[in-house]
Amino acid sequence: MIKNDLFLRALKGETVSRPPVWMMRQAGRYLPEFMEIREKYDFFTRCQTPELASEITVQPIRRYGMDAAILFSDILVVPQAMNIEVQMKAGKGPWVPNPIRNTKDLERVIVPDIDESLGYVMDAITMTKEKLQDEVPLIGFAGSPWTILCYVVEGEGSKNFAKAKQLCFSQPELAHALLQKITDTTISYLKAKIKAGVNAIQLFDSWGGLLSPEDYQTFSWQYLQQIIDAIKNESPVIVFGKGCWYALDTMAKSGASAIGVDWTITPQMARKLSGNNITLQGNFDPTRLYSSPATIKQMVKEMIDAFGKDKYIVNLGHGILPNIPLENAAAFIEAVKEYKVD
Amino acid sequence: MIKNDLFLRALKGETVSRPPVWMMRQAGRYLPEFMEIREKYDFFTRCQTPELASEITVQPIRRYGMDAAILFSDILVVPQAMNIEVQMKAGKGPWVPNPIRNTKDLERVIVPDIDESLGYVMDAITMTKEKLQDEVPLIGFAGSPWTILCYVVEGEGSKNFAKAKQLCFSQPELAHALLQKITDTTISYLKAKIKAGVNAIQLFDSWGGLLSPEDYQTFSWQYLQQIIDAIKNESPVIVFGKGCWYALDTMAKSGASAIGVDWTITPQMARKLSGNNITLQGNFDPTRLYSSPATIKQMVKEMIDAFGKDKYIVNLGHGILPNIPLENAAAFIEAVKEYKVD
Repeated sequence: MIKNDLFLRALKGETVSRPPVWMMRQAGRYLPEFMEIREKYDFFTRCQTPELASEITVQPIRRYGMDAAILFSDILVVPQAMNIEVQMKAGKGPWVPNPIRNTKDLERVIVPDIDESLGYVMDAITMTKEKLQDEVPLIGFAGSPWTILCYVVEGEGSKNFAKAKQLCFSQPELAHALLQKITDTTISYLKAKIKAGVNAIQLFDSWGGLLSPEDYQTFSWQYLQQIIDAIKNESPVIVFGKGCWYALDTMAKSGASAIGVDWTITPQMARKLSGNNITLQGNFDPTRLYSSPATIKQMVKEMIDAFGKDKYIVNLGHGILPNIPLENAAAFIEAVKEYKVD
Repeated sequence: MIKNDLFLRALKGETVSRPPVWMMRQAGRYLPEFMEIREKYDFFTRCQTPELASEITVQPIRRYGMDAAILFSDILVVPQAMNIEVQMKAGKGPWVPNPIRNTKDLERVIVPDIDESLGYVMDAITMTKEKLQDEVPLIGFAGSPWTILCYVVEGEGSKNFAKAKQLCFSQPELAHALLQKITDTTISYLKAKIKAGVNAIQLFDSWGGLLSPEDYQTFSWQYLQQIIDAIKNESPVIVFGKGCWYALDTMAKSGASAIGVDWTITPQMARKLSGNNITLQGNFDPTRLYSSPATIKQMVKEMIDAFGKDKYIVNLGHGILPNIPLENAAAFIEAVKEYKVD
C-alpha cells in the first residue's frame, strides 16, 4: 500500500538494499518554505490548522524525498488538551503560566476526550495522507510523560529542570498521579492517531537523560512501557530517549520496534547495549551538519558502515538546527541514497 | 603533614575505614554565610580578592567538616587572563562581550604570564592554607580547554553550544589553535597553583558530553591529556567530564589519579567502563538533595555500598544547587561519616 516501504521494512528488521532516512524536526526552520508559513502564523496556529500542519509536514518530502514523513505538531499539545495552558514564547520556547506544583494544581488537570480536544491533529493526519498519496509512511509522535511533566512543572525550558525534579523527589505521590494522567491521555491520543492513519509512532523522551538510571525507571520508563504495551499491537513504535544510553537494554526488551539513539554513543556500543538485535535509529550529531557537504557524506557513509545497513534507520541524534545550509541537509540525505556496501 | 588525609589516601587507592567526602560547589549559594558575602561583593571581586576567596573556601569546612576544601574561584578566570573579557551577569551566568569567532579574534588571545595575571589566585591559596591549618587538603581546579572554548566562542551559556561546535566543525584549524593556547595557559596556571600549595587538581570538562565520542577525542580529550601529562608528577589529578561516560576507559589510562562521574551512570557500570581499578568520585544527583534527610542518608549508604568504600570519593554528580536546605546537605555529609560496611 505504501509505495516506498523502506522505513516500515527496517522497523520489521527486514533486509534492505540501503537503510531508510529521515531527520528529526525535518519540517523546520532550516527550510525557506517553512519560514514563509512561520512569518504568517504563530506556533500553535500552525499546529492547530490542519491545512498548515499538513503542508509543513510534506515540505521536506517534496524538497529532499526522505523515506518517511513526520506529522508537524508539538509534544505540548497533550498538556494543552489536559487543561494546562501552554504558550510558545518567541526566542524563549515553551511557557506554562500556571505550572503544576501541588495537589490543588493537579485537580484541574483532566484526562480529556481526544476527539473533542485534539481532533485537529486527526484532521491534519487525514489531510497529510491525502497529500502524501501513499508515497512514504507517516510518523505520529508524542512526548514521554516524564518530558511533559518537566515542562508543566518547571513552567519553561531549563538546563536541569530542577523544579520538576524537586517535585518528583519531595512529593513523589503527586508526581506519579500527574504522570499517570499524562500516560492515560497519551495512550488515547496515540490510539486515535493510529486510527487516523499514521504508520508508526515515535515517543520522544527528550529529558529522560536528566535522571539517574534508577530514577529513570521510576519516573520515566514505567510510563513509557505502559504506552508501548497499549499500542504496540496497533503500530510499530520507536522510542527515543535523549541521554538514555543506560536504558538501551530495557528499551530493547520493551516491545518497541526500534530505539532512537543520540550522538553521544558509538554505533558499536549502541548495538552492544541494545543486545545486537533490535532496529536502531540515529545518531548523527545535528551540529555536524555545519561541516562541509563532502565531510558530511563521508561521515554518513562511515556511520552506516558502523551500524550496518540492516535493522537501521538513518537519522540525526536530535532535531535539525534552524540555520543549517540547505545543501548540507541535502548531502546528508543523498549520502544515504547513494549508500553501497563496500 | 595534612591531619585528615583520607582524601589523599583515596586518591592513592589506599585502604580506608570510610571513603572521604566533599561536594562540588560546596562553597556556594546554599550557605547563608556565603550569601552574606555575596550581597556585598560581585562575582569576580570575590574571586580576585584573596581575603574573600579564602574565607568562602573554608566556610563549608567549618560548618560541615568535609574531608577536602576546594578553592573558591571560577574556570573563566583563565580566559580573562588570556585577554578575553568575561563578565558574570546576575541570573544569566557568564557573558563574553567579544566572543572568539575568527582568525582576527584569535590574534588578540594571549598566553599570559601567570604571576602577573593570576597572582591573586596564588595569594588566595596561601591565605586559604593558613586558615585551613593543614586540617584537610586543598583542591585547585581548572576547566578543560574544550569547556573554556565553549564559553569564549558561544559568548554565553547555552543548551547545546551550537555556535562553539559550529566553529569546531567548520573551522577546525582555528578551533585547535585556540584550544592549544588555552591548554598552554592552563598548564602554567596549574603548575603555579601546585607550587602555591594545593594538594590535588580537579579538571572540569563540564561540556564534554555535548560531543560525540569521536569528536570528544579530537576537540577535548587530547588537550586534557596534555594537561594531565604536564602535571601528574607534581600533583594527583581528578578528571571530571559531565556526560562523558563513553570516555571512562580513556580517562582510566590517562595517568589521572581519579575520575569524577555524574549521576547518569550506575556505580557498577562506572566501575566496569573504567576498568575496575581507578579511584572514582561521585555521583549523587544534586537534585536528589531535595529528598528528605532520611532518604538522602539511605541513598548515600547504598551508593557507597555499590561503589565500594575503597578507591572511592563520595561527591555529588555535579555542583550543589543554590536552594538546598542546610539539613539536607548535612545529611549527605553525615551519612558518609557514619558509614560502616554491613
